Amino acid sequence: MSWENFVRRVVPYTPGEQPKESGIIKLNTNENPYPPAPGVQKILDEFRISDMRLYPDPDAGILIQAIAETYQVKPEQVFVGVGSDDVISMAFLTFFNSAKPILFPDVTYSFYDVWADVYHIPYQRVRLTEDFRINPEDYKIPNGGIIFPNPNAPTGVLESLELIEEILKANPDSVVMIDEAYIDFGGISCLPLLEKYENLLVIQTYSKSRSMAGMRIGFAIGNQKLIKYLNDVKFSVNSYTMNRLTLLCGAEALKDPAYFENCTGKIIETREDTKKKLAELGFVFPDSKSNFIFASHPDYDAGMIFEKLKARKIFVRYWNKPRINQYLRITVGTPEEMKQLFTALQEILIEDES
Amino acid sequence: MSWENFVRRVVPYTPGEQPKESGIIKLNTNENPYPPAPGVQKILDEFRISDMRLYPDPDAGILIQAIAETYQVKPEQVFVGVGSDDVISMAFLTFFNSAKPILFPDVTYSFYDVWADVYHIPYQRVRLTEDFRINPEDYKIPNGGIIFPNPNAPTGVLESLELIEEILKANPDSVVMIDEAYIDFGGISCLPLLEKYENLLVIQTYSKSRSMAGMRIGFAIGNQKLIKYLNDVKFSVNSYTMNRLTLLCGAEALKDPAYFENCTGKIIETREDTKKKLAELGFVFPDSKSNFIFASHPDYDAGMIFEKLKARKIFVRYWNKPRINQYLRITVGTPEEMKQLFTALQEILIEDES
Repeated sequence: MSWENFVRRVVPYTPGEQPKESGIIKLNTNENPYPPAPGVQKILDEFRISDMRLYPDPDAGILIQAIAETYQVKPEQVFVGVGSDDVISMAFLTFFNSAKPILFPDVTYSFYDVWADVYHIPYQRVRLTEDFRINPEDYKIPNGGIIFPNPNAPTGVLESLELIEEILKANPDSVVMIDEAYIDFGGISCLPLLEKYENLLVIQTYSKSRSMAGMRIGFAIGNQKLIKYLNDVKFSVNSYTMNRLTLLCGAEALKDPAYFENCTGKIIETREDTKKKLAELGFVFPDSKSNFIFASHPDYDAGMIFEKLKARKIFVRYWNKPRINQYLRITVGTPEEMKQLFTALQEILIEDES
Repeated sequence: MSWENFVRRVVPYTPGEQPKESGIIKLNTNENPYPPAPGVQKILDEFRISDMRLYPDPDAGILIQAIAETYQVKPEQVFVGVGSDDVISMAFLTFFNSAKPILFPDVTYSFYDVWADVYHIPYQRVRLTEDFRINPEDYKIPNGGIIFPNPNAPTGVLESLELIEEILKANPDSVVMIDEAYIDFGGISCLPLLEKYENLLVIQTYSKSRSMAGMRIGFAIGNQKLIKYLNDVKFSVNSYTMNRLTLLCGAEALKDPAYFENCTGKIIETREDTKKKLAELGFVFPDSKSNFIFASHPDYDAGMIFEKLKARKIFVRYWNKPRINQYLRITVGTPEEMKQLFTALQEILIEDES
């Protein structure tokens, strides 16, 4: 006997590498290549550290209010957390308590099975079609909840609102979570479906389209009843998750829609250009509506390309996992960064041939 | 049937009130009346928001390194979280997985039973003696883990290292967590016991002695094996809990021990003076080694005093709970704030007599 017998043993999620060296072209964790809205700098400049001595507002009022206004919902429909990972983790803990398995795609965000494991939630991976699409029929089986990203990660594939509604309609007894981390890069949010489905929870983040991965802000929007349950669990775990600066910066960032649209517009443009260039090099990929492209080359090993890019200080993401071990997930950076990527890829493909 | 059948239903912790009005004397959540170390302002002034677009270091290296140096332990012995509540919550989830109940005092931090409930951990409250002391014999029964604050909250009572060691010795098969949120106000930390007990986890916070409640930083120190397990669970819940600014500010705050000792010294001085003044007014209280005093008056109802103070814009903490419903927990503020408190208390006691 030992205290070690009662330890919760888990295999943790492995986040993408965060290299500390400089001179890196970092296309591995889907960060935004552009800075946050300029107004955020003003918040920092005006903040006095004497305010740090007091606890933040546990209800995160200023941030919730700003999100509610931006997305035209009631504040009671908004939940915030330390990145969308915190939000999803809380949502798993709150809503996925059935003995039946929760469902998510076999190729998807690789944190879902980790959360299921840490909270002892049974789960079942549902196989995507050969071209990485969701078949809604697969989600019409008994389940304890459903989650998938839209657009999906790491594929970038966007599903329609009709498909999401079909799944919601078939599952009134499960909470259905749509993880819209990448929705702002040309997707259509399922937020309007909240009017009709009280079991829908829509999750978004500041880490991608709002250029604030370093500040840790995620949020969920759902009907009031759902959000109330989520808050009860949140307030049973940690009352004060969002610090004072984060609340202020997060609220400010939403006040500049023109800047936001300009940034996401530039990324979409670069993405479309990247698709052309990658196709010219012989890569194939599902059509991405996110800020990354999930690319495979019929003639060259993805693991090899990954390593050779890394040696050139270009970081992309690679998983040595079934079904996806011939793919690279490449974040869309600035046009300059992408140009360096193409040059490197060209060199690598030629090298490998010779 | 409905999705609501599978919701985790809990009664959340209620944090102390965070009034938004100005002109309040806030002595209800044990915040520090003095600002954080001046160096922290420099961090803010120099921070550029363009750094926000990148994820923070998931390993919180800079902060962990600074804590390790300050407390003379290895970085592998340090765990950080979003306030000590986040740290303790993770520790409950990681270490309290036995079918036997965990033990904590009947009068203590009122979040312990909430965490036990949300994670479905059985627990047993152990009655403190009449003068709010821990009897170590009570902790020599079969258990799934032990936690208590030292000094205890809301009593302010400090127990000796000998008592803690006696409990550790009797419980090699349980993780024993000592919550040292208030240790810097004249207590002696049990960190030296880490040398001998691998089942000890010591938890501290930036929210009290370091004047940074608004930034959410807590930490735990334990042996490497314990910290490794804790990190595995943490990385199964949220990889990036500490944002970029928090990491920098937290590391900087530790670089000014003279400022720190000056602040805690002033608070201890005010506390001792407050004890004299409260005694003069007829209050009784256990001897506090924290930044608050847990005071009761033999002739006046605590609930009445609480309400009348509130009407005068002086907020203290009151729980209408068995054993403690005749006590007020009064945070030690600045000498000026305490002076206003004494004046108000004098008025209230006279008012009530007439």
